[in-house]
Amino acid sequence: MAAGKGKVLLAYSGGLDTSTILAWLIDEGYDVVAFMADVGQEEDFEAARTKAMKCGAVGFILSDMRREFIEELIYPAVQANAIYEDVYLLGTSLARPVIARGMIAAAAQEGCQYVSHGCTGKGNDQVRFELGFYGLQPDIKIIAPWRIREFYERFAGRSALLEYAASKGINVTQSKAKPWSTDENLFHTSYEAGVLEDPNHTPPADMWKLIKAPEDAPEAGEKLVISFTKGIPTKVEVGSTGKTFTDAVDIFYTLNNLARLHAVGRVDIVENRFIGVKSRGCYETPAGTILRAAHIDLEGLTLDREVRRIRDAFITTKLSEQLYNGLFFSPEGKFVRSCIPESQKTVNGEVKVKLYKGNVIIEGRKSEEQLYDEKFSSMDELGGFEPEMTTGFIEVNAIRIKRFGVGQIAKGLGGSDIKAAYGL
Amino acid sequence: MAAGKGKVLLAYSGGLDTSTILAWLIDEGYDVVAFMADVGQEEDFEAARTKAMKCGAVGFILSDMRREFIEELIYPAVQANAIYEDVYLLGTSLARPVIARGMIAAAAQEGCQYVSHGCTGKGNDQVRFELGFYGLQPDIKIIAPWRIREFYERFAGRSALLEYAASKGINVTQSKAKPWSTDENLFHTSYEAGVLEDPNHTPPADMWKLIKAPEDAPEAGEKLVISFTKGIPTKVEVGSTGKTFTDAVDIFYTLNNLARLHAVGRVDIVENRFIGVKSRGCYETPAGTILRAAHIDLEGLTLDREVRRIRDAFITTKLSEQLYNGLFFSPEGKFVRSCIPESQKTVNGEVKVKLYKGNVIIEGRKSEEQLYDEKFSSMDELGGFEPEMTTGFIEVNAIRIKRFGVGQIAKGLGGSDIKAAYGL
Amino acid sequence: MAAGKGKVLLAYSGGLDTSTILAWLIDEGYDVVAFMADVGQEEDFEAARTKAMKCGAVGFILSDMRREFIEELIYPAVQANAIYEDVYLLGTSLARPVIARGMIAAAAQEGCQYVSHGCTGKGNDQVRFELGFYGLQPDIKIIAPWRIREFYERFAGRSALLEYAASKGINVTQSKAKPWSTDENLFHTSYEAGVLEDPNHTPPADMWKLIKAPEDAPEAGEKLVISFTKGIPTKVEVGSTGKTFTDAVDIFYTLNNLARLHAVGRVDIVENRFIGVKSRGCYETPAGTILRAAHIDLEGLTLDREVRRIRDAFITTKLSEQLYNGLFFSPEGKFVRSCIPESQKTVNGEVKVKLYKGNVIIEGRKSEEQLYDEKFSSMDELGGFEPEMTTGFIEVNAIRIKRFGVGQIAKGLGGSDIKAAYGL
Amino acid sequence: MAAGKGKVLLAYSGGLDTSTILAWLIDEGYDVVAFMADVGQEEDFEAARTKAMKCGAVGFILSDMRREFIEELIYPAVQANAIYEDVYLLGTSLARPVIARGMIAAAAQEGCQYVSHGCTGKGNDQVRFELGFYGLQPDIKIIAPWRIREFYERFAGRSALLEYAASKGINVTQSKAKPWSTDENLFHTSYEAGVLEDPNHTPPADMWKLIKAPEDAPEAGEKLVISFTKGIPTKVEVGSTGKTFTDAVDIFYTLNNLARLHAVGRVDIVENRFIGVKSRGCYETPAGTILRAAHIDLEGLTLDREVRRIRDAFITTKLSEQLYNGLFFSPEGKFVRSCIPESQKTVNGEVKVKLYKGNVIIEGRKSEEQLYDEKFSSMDELGGFEPEMTTGFIEVNAIRIKRFGVGQIAKGLGGSDIKAAYGL
Repeated sequence: MAAGKGKVLLAYSGGLDTSTILAWLIDEGYDVVAFMADVGQEEDFEAARTKAMKCGAVGFILSDMRREFIEELIYPAVQANAIYEDVYLLGTSLARPVIARGMIAAAAQEGCQYVSHGCTGKGNDQVRFELGFYGLQPDIKIIAPWRIREFYERFAGRSALLEYAASKGINVTQSKAKPWSTDENLFHTSYEAGVLEDPNHTPPADMWKLIKAPEDAPEAGEKLVISFTKGIPTKVEVGSTGKTFTDAVDIFYTLNNLARLHAVGRVDIVENRFIGVKSRGCYETPAGTILRAAHIDLEGLTLDREVRRIRDAFITTKLSEQLYNGLFFSPEGKFVRSCIPESQKTVNGEVKVKLYKGNVIIEGRKSEEQLYDEKFSSMDELGGFEPEMTTGFIEVNAIRIKRFGVGQIAKGLGGSDIKAAYGL
Repeated sequence: MAAGKGKVLLAYSGGLDTSTILAWLIDEGYDVVAFMADVGQEEDFEAARTKAMKCGAVGFILSDMRREFIEELIYPAVQANAIYEDVYLLGTSLARPVIARGMIAAAAQEGCQYVSHGCTGKGNDQVRFELGFYGLQPDIKIIAPWRIREFYERFAGRSALLEYAASKGINVTQSKAKPWSTDENLFHTSYEAGVLEDPNHTPPADMWKLIKAPEDAPEAGEKLVISFTKGIPTKVEVGSTGKTFTDAVDIFYTLNNLARLHAVGRVDIVENRFIGVKSRGCYETPAGTILRAAHIDLEGLTLDREVRRIRDAFITTKLSEQLYNGLFFSPEGKFVRSCIPESQKTVNGEVKVKLYKGNVIIEGRKSEEQLYDEKFSSMDELGGFEPEMTTGFIEVNAIRIKRFGVGQIAKGLGGSDIKAAYGL
Repeated sequence: MAAGKGKVLLAYSGGLDTSTILAWLIDEGYDVVAFMADVGQEEDFEAARTKAMKCGAVGFILSDMRREFIEELIYPAVQANAIYEDVYLLGTSLARPVIARGMIAAAAQEGCQYVSHGCTGKGNDQVRFELGFYGLQPDIKIIAPWRIREFYERFAGRSALLEYAASKGINVTQSKAKPWSTDENLFHTSYEAGVLEDPNHTPPADMWKLIKAPEDAPEAGEKLVISFTKGIPTKVEVGSTGKTFTDAVDIFYTLNNLARLHAVGRVDIVENRFIGVKSRGCYETPAGTILRAAHIDLEGLTLDREVRRIRDAFITTKLSEQLYNGLFFSPEGKFVRSCIPESQKTVNGEVKVKLYKGNVIIEGRKSEEQLYDEKFSSMDELGGFEPEMTTGFIEVNAIRIKRFGVGQIAKGLGGSDIKAAYGL
Repeated sequence: MAAGKGKVLLAYSGGLDTSTILAWLIDEGYDVVAFMADVGQEEDFEAARTKAMKCGAVGFILSDMRREFIEELIYPAVQANAIYEDVYLLGTSLARPVIARGMIAAAAQEGCQYVSHGCTGKGNDQVRFELGFYGLQPDIKIIAPWRIREFYERFAGRSALLEYAASKGINVTQSKAKPWSTDENLFHTSYEAGVLEDPNHTPPADMWKLIKAPEDAPEAGEKLVISFTKGIPTKVEVGSTGKTFTDAVDIFYTLNNLARLHAVGRVDIVENRFIGVKSRGCYETPAGTILRAAHIDLEGLTLDREVRRIRDAFITTKLSEQLYNGLFFSPEGKFVRSCIPESQKTVNGEVKVKLYKGNVIIEGRKSEEQLYDEKFSSMDELGGFEPEMTTGFIEVNAIRIKRFGVGQIAKGLGGSDIKAAYGL
């Protein structure tokens, strides 16, 4: 055993990989404090604590981050309609900043000079954790065993891990490994690797853990009314039970349960990782799927067109990339998030939603904001509108268009042949 | 009757409004040629011709634009993933350029100095038609009766229209008007106005004309394999029948029929019109909904990340706005469309899709392009990847992040309190 | 004389046009209050007051808006590096919001139901004023005589105006009209129309009113040190005199005087008006030109790269368009401006500037912010940098690039011929 | 001496660093071919050849890339108005793709398995070269000695280099090293490092090599007429001599010479490197500065407003970043460049430019394109314009603005106090 090298805070999951890392770090001469974040995953935290201590950890910290995860990460993402490459709702990405923050706080409290994690060298999570660590504490030291040749060559296959664990007395009587990897928190469950690495391999039916298949959802759908205040969900009324929820966490869990039952929120995507590799992932995002659809719908009624466009081009896109790439604790992350609240001041009102066998069906929406004016919008009455004004609007918008056409004609691209000017 | 003022080509639908306009233009001293575009709507074109001639038209032109609509408008929109305000697939917008082009060609052929249409003064279509006309023929003259005070005050209600029609011998024994307006073509059917102007009024079940309700779709779903070449759908294989389609029009109609059966493609939205009014619309877009989902999925496998990002920010957004606002025949429309082909050169491959009660479920995809490399992407083997390289990648990306953190700490925003720097 | 129609607040300049409008409005039956904004233009306000009252105005309001113009409009524009079409520093645009706000406040105070102005129907200013009026008071009524056929046909030429003025006893013994139009405020002077409408006509030397020609500037240049706090200029030290200025208005006027002397700030541009017409304008923007150059330079030292990029793409571009198009008092204007302060938190420091015969030469800059680290940036020492890290950075960035190359080669576009893949 | 490891193509400059690398590579067991690109730098290529061969190179290749540099890199950058962080015209960046392409071609011809260069580990050029190499030949192997610990520790200071060179008989009787680094090609000369690393250190007067100081430029300026065809400079007429140049290279060198004489093109900037480090650079870009100003000016007259805006946001920004970051041979580089030609189809015409002591003064421009219409743009005559149309344009644009105001008032933010809604 090597001499004392200092104290490491290790992101611990209780599984084979991080248990091995724990033991290996001790072998290498570090004192190790195991850290677990409760971000809503199904987990036997007590068993994990026992295992960590048995592995030789000098301490174990369990930090409940569920409320801050929902309030500080998920709800701002809902406000911004965050999405990655049109499909992925960023479930893993969103959890990383709260965990990184929890770890930096715990490292300070425990006097750790190092933080460590069990992320592989090809994935996004290593980047998200480490940029988060550096953003919060620029001088922190990081140990990433799966990028240390000595470690990754020694533990090149599962059998090497099992053998080492056995030699350390680490209990590995776990169920047979599934042919894919998974990450779980209250926002989503992800599946990747293993059989999923063939992008044409349809995910097996028994892979999906949380959300029912549309075929298995009940024939009776569910009706909800979701209220938003400044773009944040503040009330959910459930049609079938008549119950109402107003606490941020209660709202979220209620939607999660209903979406799971009604088969809402499964996706399958080939996405582009930050490190430039394409990767196939399957995700279950129950509540997030409902909230995004409802929030977008309410913005239709309550958000100005141009504010929306600028927000879409700038906040939605950039926030999503920043979350995916692990750039939450960065100057640009701070900047972009500072612009969200102003964009949401008018996003107040409620949306009627129906869940049915995988569908999130919008059935109506209302708001006290007055950006929509039924009378003025009406096609059946003038409602104060003077149609002649539109003539001016069109004529002025046509000025550029006409000049371009005149120019094309003058260049011989026009006449009866102006279509050529448009490559038609 | 006024003296001869010239010849007008009128966009004619066969309905009460455009029949009234036809007769009124004749009253005003114009010769009128009625023009109908076949863009795939269900319509008795022969009956419309008879009616137009009976109203006094000096000619009637029916132009079949279905193939050009699919090949020149819809498929480029599929390549670009065009969508308006996250929800609307632009079904009405997409038909307008082909109709405008058909009208300008017909006006030239018939020697018309004027074009006219029956669009109201509050909508988008007046803008789309007129900017299209001006783009293609800058000196064309436009008559928009619903923006002429004399006309819109005289025909302020439906009874005035009916009375006038009766006086002109125009057959109005049509079925009772529905409490909403509709526009139909092979890409979509839209519903707006009337009872839908209350945005909280759930669309009545009998409104939806083409696409079944999810509840009414068959329990047995349908599996498809859709092939794309340079981002354009070039083959569809239907699982249940084993049939294969390769013609652009056949592919489109096949997908339309299956999507309608399986309840795919209904949306309900409050959108922002070009003239600044918010408007509620319900849309049925069967084939378009499948194609967009499949195309986006295949891009995940075959399109470079950065090409995609630039394309999303620039082509997708701008093309969608241009289509919605009627700026297809514009310099910027021409410019943006010129950039699509290069973006799609690698979008070759096929996507497995399952339709089930409203869901479009992606089940896999494959491609000969090699942007995805299973071995290199694998989480289970190194496949030529050196994990240490990622350390460098992270460390270099962290340089900015750390400097910012150091600066914040120096300003007293950091230390144990660096969270304050991030407003947390 | 017509019956009393109400009270109008007229934006009055003291010139022939607005004096005519004043008298004409009275003819039309309105009571008119003349309003003048002091935004730093050279003007005999007392003479204007006398003239307005003699024309029949029921009141005259002079509002000194110089400080709010500088502090609330110009300095935020400096923070955002606002510029229109790469050249125009928005001098006229920036004054319009303060004037519109002053007028709406004065109209309320004077009990006016109407506001009026003398802008022509082809320009930007009509749009800027009127959208500003509507934004601040949606139910205000606007009278724009130059867009009223009765008015513009009656006063079609200068002689008609002169004749009418004479008939009303309005003093028109002004100096001979210059062959261009001008707008002046403390930020800039503009020249357009008249002989300048030929875009190839070089502006006559005697046109430029404020800023010397480079040829006429003194051989001895001037050195300045300009300090910024959160992106706002907070101190100017003048090398030649040793004087220091810290008041916002003093700083601005000092820079104006020096830039004028040293020939800084003339431009000549063909720009695109909001109404779609191209227009040639010549502008003198003395202080603004120095401040923009110095501010951009300091951002190089103190602003994070990614914050800058997002800010450039979003705030700079959008704010500039909004100002130009008169959309300051709009939801999107409010939104975009709300994002400026966070972007400027680190823009603290000072810039050394030399003025010399038209040139603004940056000679150095410094800051207490620590985003630039001399040692770490040094090419001559490692300063804590590990060069191997860059290998990882490059290799990971190359993953996408290599995959694309491999794919191109596989398609037969590569081998010795991969240049073909790049169209070379 | 090690055994034969293969053949390396080394980017050779003739200086101490690359001569040392050459000798070191031979020591390491490689055969080395020295490669020099003639991109217009002042250099004694024959002396360099002699030196390389004397160092032990097995071959020497000199490749004249001046024309392709101008035609394939610089002129597209002019078309796109490329610029980095508002100041830097990308002179070094632009040369890298032609050099990388030349090296890959030479490596193939010479049978080299490796390419090597003398770039340091903190700079941009290593990234630009290496990403270029990988883009053109994904399986090329790269040797970057300044990122190899063994090398950079051995040659940590200048004296170690000199000593080693002496031991190898390499002639180092060069002039005393300047206290900064420099890179030169026909587009620009750069200065960085050394005394310039203090960003507040004013560049010494004798640093600037090519471009005169404004104080030293002749009192008589120079007038030019520069013609562009599709955005590319195709003719220059020089006022003082009456000479005309039409060849791409002649045009460029003519402008270079005149700009140098008239003090045009010096800048000083703190910029953000790709690797996240801030860096101070001084640049002389003579012809490029004139061409950018003239091209932007002509676009004012000939380019549609919306095409310009999309081009600015997308092509200008992205191309500039790609060039700076070395992503020319990348899928996104290829994509962005494919969009340039359509954007420039109307950019035809000529610009009158005056050079005077550092100033590039635009004096007029003309074009056969008809996007500018003098009569229609005129402020003095209607020219076919109907002013009432603008009323409609304004009223329709005000619809959104008014609704927002009404909503703000309804929320108690308005009334006399609507300014509060705008945070004023």
